[in-house]
Amino acid sequence: MKPQEIETLSFKIIDNEAQGHGFGPAEWPVVRRLIHTSADFDYLNTIRFHKDAIAAGITAIRSGKPIITDTEMARSGIRKTALVPFGNRVICRISDSDVADAAKKNGTTRALEAVNRSVPEMEGGIYVVGNAPTALLRLIELIQAQKAFPALILGFPVGFVNAAESKALLLEHDIPYITNTGRKGGSNIAAGALNALIILSMDKQL
Amino acid sequence: MKPQEIETLSFKIIDNEAQGHGFGPAEWPVVRRLIHTSADFDYLNTIRFHKDAIAAGITAIRSGKPIITDTEMARSGIRKTALVPFGNRVICRISDSDVADAAKKNGTTRALEAVNRSVPEMEGGIYVVGNAPTALLRLIELIQAQKAFPALILGFPVGFVNAAESKALLLEHDIPYITNTGRKGGSNIAAGALNALIILSMDKQL
Repeated sequence: MKPQEIETLSFKIIDNEAQGHGFGPAEWPVVRRLIHTSADFDYLNTIRFHKDAIAAGITAIRSGKPIITDTEMARSGIRKTALVPFGNRVICRISDSDVADAAKKNGTTRALEAVNRSVPEMEGGIYVVGNAPTALLRLIELIQAQKAFPALILGFPVGFVNAAESKALLLEHDIPYITNTGRKGGSNIAAGALNALIILSMDKQL
Repeated sequence: MKPQEIETLSFKIIDNEAQGHGFGPAEWPVVRRLIHTSADFDYLNTIRFHKDAIAAGITAIRSGKPIITDTEMARSGIRKTALVPFGNRVICRISDSDVADAAKKNGTTRALEAVNRSVPEMEGGIYVVGNAPTALLRLIELIQAQKAFPALILGFPVGFVNAAESKALLLEHDIPYITNTGRKGGSNIAAGALNALIILSMDKQL
């Protein structure tokens, strides 16, 4: 089988096993891709969409706004070739030397300092969090203080310390987001959500 | 909390929730890291170790043998800085132009052709599969035919078409492997397994 045939068959299997899921036609391609990426049907129950999330994501992508990730893994997983026609840059500042210096100096995490460094770039763009609760918490803080203006947050920190808590906090805010409840998530999931939005952005019917 | 404190606390939580797991002292750090990476305790029940896997992995890393991945995401997720003292290269051929050409010409996948192209490099090294069943199936085929000689396979293809089947086939062979049963897996999981082996390799008591 060719890669496209494998994907088509995979989606068919997911559609079949997730019958009666209740997601709408714009949201389902996102949920389905997370399941495709992880083989984990938990996302059926745990994913959460802000009402403006899909539209905000499509507008950001089509406008060529920057996409910023908290990890190199998430950056790697994003379909950068598909973004070329839209002109979006995909940025990850986690390995920048000034970010490491600031984290050391301030006793914070590199993920948090990478958010601070990315404030100008994230305006109107998408911030993709696949790992660090500290990045997500800092984003919420800056947005609440009207110091940062991303169009959309994909919030999928994973783990046992503050991941679930940071996502629960995101849900309390009127910020366009796609996120999930609980401990699960990851850079693969975050990149998968972004890739689903890229594919929706290529759909001329939407 | 600093990153190291977050990791320590996370491991404590996992140790606590997975009490009575029955894994030995060499295997548990690998299983625990997969759970840490995914927040998915399914790996407690689904991970499988060939009896020589841990020793083969540590020897390959300490000998500076190449580490080859099937995806750029897995390559991104590997702690390359920690490998510097050992001198291992981390290679991913999925984006090589000759790999894409061969896949097109032969009607195969890039992941399979990347395996073919990596045969000389994988001798004594570790092949890390985080996505493509076709890569894992081709590896098994080449090893059985005594045409490829990796020291260890980390086999974690994910998905709905041939992922579980390719891993079940790996389990039937006397090839050092770490893998899991079922559909789950991914580049994050594969990189996590390799990172656990790197940390074991740094332990002078082993």
